[in-house]
Amino acid sequence: MAHAYIPRKSDKFTFGLWTVMNTGRDPFGDATRPALSGLRAITELGKRRVYSYELHAEDLVPEGSAAAKRDKIVREAKTRMADADIKATSIGCNIFYDPVFKDGGLTSHDPLIRQHTIQRYVKAIDLGAELGTTLCNVWGGREGAECDAAKDPAEGIKRFREAFNYLSEYVRGQKLKGFRLSIEPKPNEPRGDILLPTSGHVLGFIATLDHPDMVGVVPELAHVRMAGLNSYHEIAQVLECGKLFGIHLNGQKPLRFDQDLRFGAEDLKESFFVVKVIEDAQWPGTRTFDAHAYRTVDRKGVWDFVEGCMRTYLILKEKVAQFNSDLVVQGILGELSQEAPALPSPRALKAKKFDLRKLAKTRLPYEELDQRVQEILLGVVR
Amino acid sequence: MAHAYIPRKSDKFTFGLWTVMNTGRDPFGDATRPALSGLRAITELGKRRVYSYELHAEDLVPEGSAAAKRDKIVREAKTRMADADIKATSIGCNIFYDPVFKDGGLTSHDPLIRQHTIQRYVKAIDLGAELGTTLCNVWGGREGAECDAAKDPAEGIKRFREAFNYLSEYVRGQKLKGFRLSIEPKPNEPRGDILLPTSGHVLGFIATLDHPDMVGVVPELAHVRMAGLNSYHEIAQVLECGKLFGIHLNGQKPLRFDQDLRFGAEDLKESFFVVKVIEDAQWPGTRTFDAHAYRTVDRKGVWDFVEGCMRTYLILKEKVAQFNSDLVVQGILGELSQEAPALPSPRALKAKKFDLRKLAKTRLPYEELDQRVQEILLGVVR
Amino acid sequence: MAHAYIPRKSDKFTFGLWTVMNTGRDPFGDATRPALSGLRAITELGKRRVYSYELHAEDLVPEGSAAAKRDKIVREAKTRMADADIKATSIGCNIFYDPVFKDGGLTSHDPLIRQHTIQRYVKAIDLGAELGTTLCNVWGGREGAECDAAKDPAEGIKRFREAFNYLSEYVRGQKLKGFRLSIEPKPNEPRGDILLPTSGHVLGFIATLDHPDMVGVVPELAHVRMAGLNSYHEIAQVLECGKLFGIHLNGQKPLRFDQDLRFGAEDLKESFFVVKVIEDAQWPGTRTFDAHAYRTVDRKGVWDFVEGCMRTYLILKEKVAQFNSDLVVQGILGELSQEAPALPSPRALKAKKFDLRKLAKTRLPYEELDQRVQEILLGVVR
Amino acid sequence: MAHAYIPRKSDKFTFGLWTVMNTGRDPFGDATRPALSGLRAITELGKRRVYSYELHAEDLVPEGSAAAKRDKIVREAKTRMADADIKATSIGCNIFYDPVFKDGGLTSHDPLIRQHTIQRYVKAIDLGAELGTTLCNVWGGREGAECDAAKDPAEGIKRFREAFNYLSEYVRGQKLKGFRLSIEPKPNEPRGDILLPTSGHVLGFIATLDHPDMVGVVPELAHVRMAGLNSYHEIAQVLECGKLFGIHLNGQKPLRFDQDLRFGAEDLKESFFVVKVIEDAQWPGTRTFDAHAYRTVDRKGVWDFVEGCMRTYLILKEKVAQFNSDLVVQGILGELSQEAPALPSPRALKAKKFDLRKLAKTRLPYEELDQRVQEILLGVVR
Repeated sequence: MAHAYIPRKSDKFTFGLWTVMNTGRDPFGDATRPALSGLRAITELGKRRVYSYELHAEDLVPEGSAAAKRDKIVREAKTRMADADIKATSIGCNIFYDPVFKDGGLTSHDPLIRQHTIQRYVKAIDLGAELGTTLCNVWGGREGAECDAAKDPAEGIKRFREAFNYLSEYVRGQKLKGFRLSIEPKPNEPRGDILLPTSGHVLGFIATLDHPDMVGVVPELAHVRMAGLNSYHEIAQVLECGKLFGIHLNGQKPLRFDQDLRFGAEDLKESFFVVKVIEDAQWPGTRTFDAHAYRTVDRKGVWDFVEGCMRTYLILKEKVAQFNSDLVVQGILGELSQEAPALPSPRALKAKKFDLRKLAKTRLPYEELDQRVQEILLGVVR
Repeated sequence: MAHAYIPRKSDKFTFGLWTVMNTGRDPFGDATRPALSGLRAITELGKRRVYSYELHAEDLVPEGSAAAKRDKIVREAKTRMADADIKATSIGCNIFYDPVFKDGGLTSHDPLIRQHTIQRYVKAIDLGAELGTTLCNVWGGREGAECDAAKDPAEGIKRFREAFNYLSEYVRGQKLKGFRLSIEPKPNEPRGDILLPTSGHVLGFIATLDHPDMVGVVPELAHVRMAGLNSYHEIAQVLECGKLFGIHLNGQKPLRFDQDLRFGAEDLKESFFVVKVIEDAQWPGTRTFDAHAYRTVDRKGVWDFVEGCMRTYLILKEKVAQFNSDLVVQGILGELSQEAPALPSPRALKAKKFDLRKLAKTRLPYEELDQRVQEILLGVVR
Repeated sequence: MAHAYIPRKSDKFTFGLWTVMNTGRDPFGDATRPALSGLRAITELGKRRVYSYELHAEDLVPEGSAAAKRDKIVREAKTRMADADIKATSIGCNIFYDPVFKDGGLTSHDPLIRQHTIQRYVKAIDLGAELGTTLCNVWGGREGAECDAAKDPAEGIKRFREAFNYLSEYVRGQKLKGFRLSIEPKPNEPRGDILLPTSGHVLGFIATLDHPDMVGVVPELAHVRMAGLNSYHEIAQVLECGKLFGIHLNGQKPLRFDQDLRFGAEDLKESFFVVKVIEDAQWPGTRTFDAHAYRTVDRKGVWDFVEGCMRTYLILKEKVAQFNSDLVVQGILGELSQEAPALPSPRALKAKKFDLRKLAKTRLPYEELDQRVQEILLGVVR
Repeated sequence: MAHAYIPRKSDKFTFGLWTVMNTGRDPFGDATRPALSGLRAITELGKRRVYSYELHAEDLVPEGSAAAKRDKIVREAKTRMADADIKATSIGCNIFYDPVFKDGGLTSHDPLIRQHTIQRYVKAIDLGAELGTTLCNVWGGREGAECDAAKDPAEGIKRFREAFNYLSEYVRGQKLKGFRLSIEPKPNEPRGDILLPTSGHVLGFIATLDHPDMVGVVPELAHVRMAGLNSYHEIAQVLECGKLFGIHLNGQKPLRFDQDLRFGAEDLKESFFVVKVIEDAQWPGTRTFDAHAYRTVDRKGVWDFVEGCMRTYLILKEKVAQFNSDLVVQGILGELSQEAPALPSPRALKAKKFDLRKLAKTRLPYEELDQRVQEILLGVVR
């Protein structure tokens, strides 16, 4: 019998509403599952001990809804949230499905499309604030190009900047205390190349904004792996400079289209280090899963997928604790760690002699260490 | 305390001599470990309960050695093999280090370089037969191009074919009973593109030889993953058509240079299925590790690496047995499996009606199944 | 003013009907262009001097059409083909859009789904024969897995084999003279991994069939590049063994989802060598484009895309002729080429001495050669 | 006969000394070309109308050289620079070849190795200032990990920061007017993963330094492409925020080890846009080639490689001018471009109505545009 890895609210597990609303549609095939409404998704996630949900505004409120309809949906959502004891923590917009966004929203050549996109985000911030979210997260999936002649990337960045400065001012003007903005980067798909393709590029961009303190990053593991980068390193850098405003956990086999697999499904060791870096830091954010069930499974399979994401996280969290108290691991790490004296003055440093042959001989038992990690992961050491 | 995963001779673990002779030299850096002789490698591997070794002829006998020197080395090798209870099972040649091979050996434009390469393989077959190997494995690392104008790939394939037909005749002429030839494919590195880049391409090539029965494939996991392919699928196809003459086990993070990591280090689930396909088939070949220790480790780390490869294999083999008897897994697989009646005649088939909507509804609980596999791998179900 | 690269029927340019019927739907977005009927596509392609079209049976005849409706469509298609002077040369089936195929058609676990898929191919062969095609091409996009526990790849290959043996017998039984079958491989997408992922794997599979002579390969450039392989090498190997039954030309940036870009759009040098290998061989098959217009363009842009594919092919073909007569290129290639004497007997070969240092010194002026190719491509040498 | 693309000093072409000193050594093979001294490289590059060179300090002055020897080399270098009319513009250190750096220099666990590395950079800054360079460029090739348990990436970043803050203070203290520092990012190789893997990550890091104005980025095209990113986008973002302190031009086939091919050899369209972005911006930096000749070529081939890099740049620069004056291209771009009014106030924006169906219909003739670019590249439009 399996151990009991039962999620608790304090685990702060979060799912995007869209993850369970996914119907299995793909570029070569039609939906394989019936639609699920956003309202129903809230209830079902709550039942499964999920802490909160994230949403695209359109997951609940169709674009163009009249004010009365919108308000009714919001009331219903709040009732369900209370009933199912689930919060809303982050909101964004669907700036990718409608053909109007085929060449981008915030970076479209058309000033009206750019305005409409900003309008959507402004309204989403209002909606998010009503639902209790404190983050508006922007995934600019269409903000890129296949035809490089058509879109000057520097122009694209300037348009992004104008939008983020505008939205920051809006949040400040509304006095939405603690409300922040974020960008979720992705290297490509659905566009041939997407602007601000990695967390690094977003960090560089944020430094050029009017209110850099209000804007952060939401890295998604699969997106990092699509560029062959190390998601543990990615998150560690974002965390180190105080910019980890959220995280999207999932699985991805490199060298492929965006798979959005169940967390941990294809990259156990890297997933382990991702859990480690956020748990060791006691990072206060939600552990959000942004993935979807295989297209082959039915509705029941969607809930298997939800449970699987959370179970794998809890298993890996347990293994992080084991790693942190394992005598072999800690013995090696202790051996590697050395007191770092202050750097000498340039004059003293220039004169200093180093015995390179001796320094090269320090033992770095990384095969032993990595194998130990593997065996902790495989559950054969206790 | 760790479980005891102690290798036995019956596990048929094999290492290339070159794997432990590796000194840590890389494209940007010098050797970090002292040299280890091939003879010493034989002894050290034997001590660690390794079943057999593979070699490049040059690992033991430097090219150009006089006959007397060669024979002395062979005698010494045999003595050590007997002392350490270790066999030799496969031989190849180093057709990559010497600058003469910079544009290929078997596919060089220069007929003399081609002849020299074949000479090396002929001599290696003799040496291998003396040492008891029954396979001559060809890794044509230099048989490719960066400048496509310079090398007609069809011409390259014809040259490969001439060589394999020649070597096959040689083996037949020598009456080396049971002795066979194989090709180990790789997509690129050190060349920009290498001919016969995957096991599939080798299978296609073998079908065009004079003695296709004598030639097989030795897939290497890292090489499969460098092309983003699934190594479990690769090996299953080669095995299914009777062409798995050997296997080179290691680890690789995709989207990178050839890493040759410790088996299992970067791809636990795929490694598990590789172990499963060869164990379930009771495949009689050796389980050969073709990898090397991190450049950061010293000589001791090399032996940690050797132990780690074997331990991980044994752990995964144990998990294969668990998978094969797990009630959840086998319940799902049983549900999926259906008796397959013979296909109707074309006339009957054309007339047959199928209820596609009903057929589309069959439950495929793959999220549950894959999560169960994950939890078996993570050691949290027993 | 641009040169006139006007296609002629003798250029044998072909488009899949689906390429111009594409509406711009993608995994994250809805259609951006109105639907185009298959019949209309025939006429429009014919008008643009296209030699022939390929089709999925379903592009013209919806699955489940009554016989009368089907026959009416076929008559209408033939009329349009005559009117627009365009042939049909290859047929396949859409075994990917309908949810019933979510876990494969020919390799589904369900024997009824397998039978239905074969039924579709049998009917497609009949339809193809009526329209004048001589090839039934199978793209098994759903024949793969994301959850390796669920699908034994060896079992999948056996099911593929049963299907191809059945279809081969059917073609023989129908006495469809010259009618052949082919497989178009792809490594992944829409499945995590697809069986028979490259042309090589298909060649290996064909060698195990009952009628290997009847089955060939249709490589697609983008699919080759998705695995990081060299499409020139891929096609050369397939051609060398007589198995190039078709070709699907397009463009692809590696490390991305399947882009299906306009031919030549992302890989000019490799595209040049692909044109070279098929033109130099005077390969008699059709030059088929399997790609689609950017999702950003309207219907007019679709026809720009069609013209662009053909123009780029004609430009590259002209450059192939230039390469073949360029004195610099041919001078270098002549220098490289050497008479190849017959291989000596093993005894003589073993005794032969080679001066490796001298052999290593042969001049291989590949920088000069490759730069010359670049300048031919760039149009700065005449 | 070829057009004359003769480099001039005003083209500001630069080569790393190491590029022509490269002997063809690779992970699987020995040197194929004799060594070339750094001093000789200066003279030979100057002869070929190269504007300046970059160097690793060790290319000229072996680590551990006595002061007298160092000074003699510096004098000789200056004499050669004057004789051959070539400048030195950027310096770095070789922190990768010596085994002491096997686990990093600036990020090593060992404080003494870190100090030694900083010492090298301090001395390199002195040397660079003497030779006339105004940039010290850091490529931290060893600053990464294969075993993620062994190296905390956040710790690595802190160590990087300490070093850059120290070096910035040193430059300020020395009053080296206009002297700046830069980082050249790379995702992997020789390490499994390298810290600060892309230009974006470097930009994010710079924002956290004591003197962010003194530190910039030197993107290398091949490194960008190894992560599947778009090098045009990469450089545009770095340029847009004023951080393009240098550029390393070369060619790379994605999905492969670091090839360092001749500029333009594998990616003509992307190379074109890279030339375009820096020429259109009248960027004042040097156009530096960081690549090496194929291992197959001899010393003569190295100079072919040097000429090829510069010729291709000049050809592409000419095509940039053609693009900028081409009526078809500029007509389409003009059509796309629209006056951008100031954004309305939030209140006004929220109330604004947008006709999405109409906005979605704007013509975006990107197939025509991209094909035009292709034909300019192919030299068939004038």
